[in-house]
This record gives sequence, C-alpha cells and structure tokens, in this order.
Amino acid sequence: MLSSRIGILGGGQLGLMLLQAAIDWNLDIHILDPDAHAPCKSIAPHFQQGSLQDFETVYEFGKNLDIITIEIEKVNVEALEKLEKEGKKIYPQPAVIRKIQDKRIQKQFYADHNLPTADFILTEDRNDAAKHADFLPAFHKLGKDGYDGRGVQRIQTEEDFAKAFDQPGLLEKSVDFDKELAVIVARNAQGDVNCFPSVEMVFHPEHNLVEYLFAPAEIGADVAQKAKDIAIATAEALGIVGILAVELFLTKDGNILINEVAPRPHNSGHQTIRANATSQYEQHWRAILGLPLGDTLALAPSAMVNLLGEDGYEGPAVYEGMEVLLATKQVYPFLYWKAITKPFRKMGHVTILDQDIPSLKKKVAFVKNHIKVKSK
Amino acid sequence: MLSSRIGILGGGQLGLMLLQAAIDWNLDIHILDPDAHAPCKSIAPHFQQGSLQDFETVYEFGKNLDIITIEIEKVNVEALEKLEKEGKKIYPQPAVIRKIQDKRIQKQFYADHNLPTADFILTEDRNDAAKHADFLPAFHKLGKDGYDGRGVQRIQTEEDFAKAFDQPGLLEKSVDFDKELAVIVARNAQGDVNCFPSVEMVFHPEHNLVEYLFAPAEIGADVAQKAKDIAIATAEALGIVGILAVELFLTKDGNILINEVAPRPHNSGHQTIRANATSQYEQHWRAILGLPLGDTLALAPSAMVNLLGEDGYEGPAVYEGMEVLLATKQVYPFLYWKAITKPFRKMGHVTILDQDIPSLKKKVAFVKNHIKVKSK
Repeated sequence: MLSSRIGILGGGQLGLMLLQAAIDWNLDIHILDPDAHAPCKSIAPHFQQGSLQDFETVYEFGKNLDIITIEIEKVNVEALEKLEKEGKKIYPQPAVIRKIQDKRIQKQFYADHNLPTADFILTEDRNDAAKHADFLPAFHKLGKDGYDGRGVQRIQTEEDFAKAFDQPGLLEKSVDFDKELAVIVARNAQGDVNCFPSVEMVFHPEHNLVEYLFAPAEIGADVAQKAKDIAIATAEALGIVGILAVELFLTKDGNILINEVAPRPHNSGHQTIRANATSQYEQHWRAILGLPLGDTLALAPSAMVNLLGEDGYEGPAVYEGMEVLLATKQVYPFLYWKAITKPFRKMGHVTILDQDIPSLKKKVAFVKNHIKVKSK
Repeated sequence: MLSSRIGILGGGQLGLMLLQAAIDWNLDIHILDPDAHAPCKSIAPHFQQGSLQDFETVYEFGKNLDIITIEIEKVNVEALEKLEKEGKKIYPQPAVIRKIQDKRIQKQFYADHNLPTADFILTEDRNDAAKHADFLPAFHKLGKDGYDGRGVQRIQTEEDFAKAFDQPGLLEKSVDFDKELAVIVARNAQGDVNCFPSVEMVFHPEHNLVEYLFAPAEIGADVAQKAKDIAIATAEALGIVGILAVELFLTKDGNILINEVAPRPHNSGHQTIRANATSQYEQHWRAILGLPLGDTLALAPSAMVNLLGEDGYEGPAVYEGMEVLLATKQVYPFLYWKAITKPFRKMGHVTILDQDIPSLKKKVAFVKNHIKVKSK
C-alpha cells in the first residue's frame, strides 16, 4: 500500500500537512487544486491545477491513481463514485462525503442513528425558515457550501429572518452550551477505531473561527469518555475510512451534542503534529492505507492558535513577530505557504506545548499579542 | 530572514529532512545535486541538477540566493568563498568547510587548539605511512573525500600497510575506547550555542556505519558534561554558524577524545525529529537564519536504527516489514526517497521512543529483525 499512487483533492494547508507527513514514508502524492498558487504547489511531487467540482477533471485526475482522498468536502462526488465503481479506493468514501457535504442530510443522519444533536427543522428557503419564529433563538445554516464561518446566520428575533439563507438549509435550535469540544477519531478499512484526546475550542467572538484551542479539554473523565463514545459511534455509523473530526457542544446541563463533522484532518488537530505520538495527518495515511492505527498518546498538554490575517490588510503576507515566538520555548509556528493575506484568512497556526493548561493559556496570550499577519 | 532565498548544496536524505523542517516556516529552498533522482528532487520547491564540485556550477547556483548551506562537505569551497566575498551568507562558512574537508587539517586544528583527540602523524603516501610501524595499532585515514566508512583502513601489523592509502592522509593511533558518543551542537551568528543530549552509537561490526544509537548515552553526568564542553569548545574554536556534529571516543580510562566532526545535520541526530523539543534540522535553520536557538530538551529517551540496503540486493527498493513496524507504538520509520537500493546503502532510518534505555534496546532488536530493505 505504501507504493500506491495517491491523490488528494485539494492543495490547501491540510493538504500541505498531509504532504509533510507523507515525506516520512516516501508516499507518491498527486494534488489537484484550482489555485495555481495553492499551498501545496511548491512541495507536492505532482501538482495539477484544476477544478475540484468538475466531473471530468476529478475523474481524469483519479483515473491513473490507486487511492484518492480529500482535504476539503466540496468536491465532485459523482466522479468519485464512478472511480470507486471502477475499483479505486476512495477514502473517505463518496457516500460519506455526500452525507457530510449537505448539512441537511448530515443532521438527518444523526437523528436517524440516535446520535445526539441539537433540535432542527429543515427549511427550503428564507420564507420557509421564517415560519418558525417559535423555534428561536436559532441558527440558520446553509445546506451546502458553508465553510469557515460562512453559511451560518444567528437568528434571534423574527427580524433576523431577513438574514436567513434563501436556499435549502436548516434551522438549528440555539444550544445553551458551556464549552465547544472536538474529538478526532480515525477508522481504518479493517474497522479499527481510535481517538485523539478531546480538545476544547475557544472561538473568535465575531468571526466564528477557532481562535485557539487546547488539549486535553478541561472536562471530567466521564464527559471525556462520553465525547469519545459519541465520536466513535458517529465514525462507525458513517462507516468512514479516514479521519473524522467531530465538533461537539457540552451543554450547561452536561449533555454532549454533535455540532458538525468533517471527514478529513481538521483545524482542531494541528497540534497533534508536535504534541502526540502520532499526528492526525499520519493517522489519516494509516487509516486510508489500511495500516494499523497509530498511538494517539499526548506527550504533553498543548494549545493551538490560528494565525488569521489581520483586519485591514490585504496583499503579500508578512509575519510580524516570528522572532519573538521562536525565542519562546516549545512554541511552534507553522505558516501556510499562502502568498496573499486577507482579513481573517487562515495564514498559519502556532502550536504550544507546556506542562499544564494554565501555563499554556499564558503562552497563548503571549503568542496572540506578539504575532500579526500583515501585508507589505 | 525567513523570506530569504536559501540554497542547499546536496539533495540527499539530510537535505530532505532539512526541507521537511523548512515547510513549517515557508522557507524558499533551492537544491543543487548532481543526481537527477536525488531524494530531494520531488519535494524541493526548486531543484537544479549539477555538480557540487564544479566552481562555475556552484557559483552560478549561489549567485541569485541570499543564504547558502550544505548537507555534504564535499563541495567547491572556492565558489563559496567568492560568493561570501560578494556578500552572500554562507553557513557553515567556507573557512570551516575547508578545515573539515581535509582530515589532516581538521586533526591539526584540534592539536593547535588543545582540543583532545587521538595522537596522529600526517603521512604523504603509502610508503610514508609504512615508516611508522612503531605507531601501530592505528588507523590510516584518507585526508580528503572519505565518506560513510570509506577512507579509513585499520592497520594492525606492518603487513597491513599494504592497505594504507597512497595519498595524503594521517595515521591515527588506535584508541582503546569504551563507547562512541556524539554531541550535536548548534551555534548561531550571534554566537549563542547549545547542545542536544549526548547519544551513544553502536557500530556495525564490519561496515563502519552506525547500526543504531540511543539517547541519552549511558554515561555519568560528569562524562556527559565533559562531552558537551568539548563539543561547545570545538564549535567556538571553529566559529561555525550552523550545526556541528561532534563524534567522540570515551576511552576506557575515562577520557574523551574527538574522533571527527561534521559541519551539518548528522546521522546521529535523526531521532531529534521525534524525540526533542527542537529537531537538529529546525535548529540548523535557526542557527543559519540568525534566529534564537531552540530548546533541545528530550521529551523521551530515543533510539535510531539505520536502515541499510540488505547485502545481496541491488535494484528498485522494497521495504519489507513496514506493517509490523507501524503496528508497534512509538516506532517511526523514515524512508529516504532513493529508488535504488544497494548493499549497505543508507535507505532510511527508524526512530524509536520509549520510557527507558533497556526498553528501547528491546525495540531496536525487534526493528532490526523485522524490517529489511531488499530489491524487487
């Protein structure tokens, strides 16, 4: 399996970190991305510019490969289905991607499999959504193509329905939560599963992007076990082969609800590169190559800070403050090979190790104060 | 400094691991190597095929870059000197490379700087060497171009002088040593220095290649301190900017002698990628980019097993036993992107972490028994 020709749909930062892990095993990686300057461009052994959503492009890309995976869900599933029928290994499987691509199908899947999630109503358009004032406060979520904080609107009052999407979506009841957690679970073709330790995510107050996270989450052992059980149950219900990132709400009354899942390495697992015996990227390769899953042991408590493009700056990126970061012990910046910064664009992240969560949080504050992504 | 155009002379496995580390910081790396299929070829953002020993090739390669480093000592130093005069940053400095390239100059340098090393006599040719029967047992070492066990002959009896090199070299008195150690020291342009923990090397009985090593070495704190002091004194005497790997003998009477040094990341530091807070590769970038040196703390005891091409096999490489290795916790194979295996060629290595040295040694035996590099 290690000599397979492997394709990745998408050449962004997740692809880049998959590539970096693939170097260890001399994996033959082929990348498809619509952007000629995608992060993977300079590093990938084989890079092809092309649409991820065009049937012919995806099919032709996959035709000469043995295994195809993704680093983004928004891909042409029909082409993957055809490739799968022709005997290619497509992991995660097209049927899994199809379920997750559309948040409506995803939510219904949880309901059908008794997987805990916030109450919801499927809606066809804005007018349809607006019929459910009794369901507020809620979030209106676009069925397809939401990404990185886009595709979600908070609906607190009837007036807010003006902001609802005029396309198929769902209205999800606001959850009174205490924390947001994530558990990354891996499942290989043999059906083995294991989880990374739970992480606790802290969101940017305005931009609906993870500002930083830390692991292990500050939760009791019982809650951690429940989160892990739900993540594993979800992976098994989907039958996924690969990494599944499961984002969860811990409600104020101690329940755990699934927020959403991603069938690929995830922002909430970057820190595993430095902090865990196996990284989520290596784990993804293990899962899809049919290898034994790696040890997810945390060697140290860790935090991860997203480096977002500073508001008000757009253009060639400059990372201010790198020297200060690099002078701090066990602080690891990772830059994403994106030439152009834009406000709130994910431009990199910083992994931080330390002996305990309070020390980690101090370093998080330090890192956030000292590094800025601006433009020339 | 992070936006500099950086060149590496040599695109072998050390270059590959330098590249892999450089991905974290989005470094713009250009590689020169004579082999069109060098390990770095598929991964390097920029790869140029060309001789490392040809003045024009090296000079033209370096002319459009800001910083040039090496992953092999056998390079055209005159070209690097010219580039240095023209204002390029060449780290390690050409003057350092020149001293280390020739083992005669290297040994004389230790003697001149009161750095402890085995007694030696410089010899011009075979006949000259054969005049020193009273100096036996000894090793005859070629002045220039020795590499990976080549360029060294054991001379125990007068008859053995027939194997002495008929070129300038040196006769080094055999050292009655207890262990072979290595200390990797880094020095940046500001003059900051720090060391990785001492490693203990175990050599293949016949092939004069490291079979495996482990860290920390099984030596007392006083010996460890002495080894570290000698490594730092050597780096400072050379004034090197970059990584210096210092190979040492621990004699049976408790003395430490310098065997030889390498002015670049080294085989004896591969395990730092997985085991230490900073890898030797990241440390090299820090040193030559004028950044603060990273924390060398070992997160766990570690071992490293070289994967050598199995005797009797030459051709397209096949790594037998990878699955067994990958099913073992905290065992990390790293393959070198070399298409062709040859007997005893360095084809990869395996890093092993465990809680103590006895457990590590058991895993070393397991790894050695289960992975073989053969040909198709």
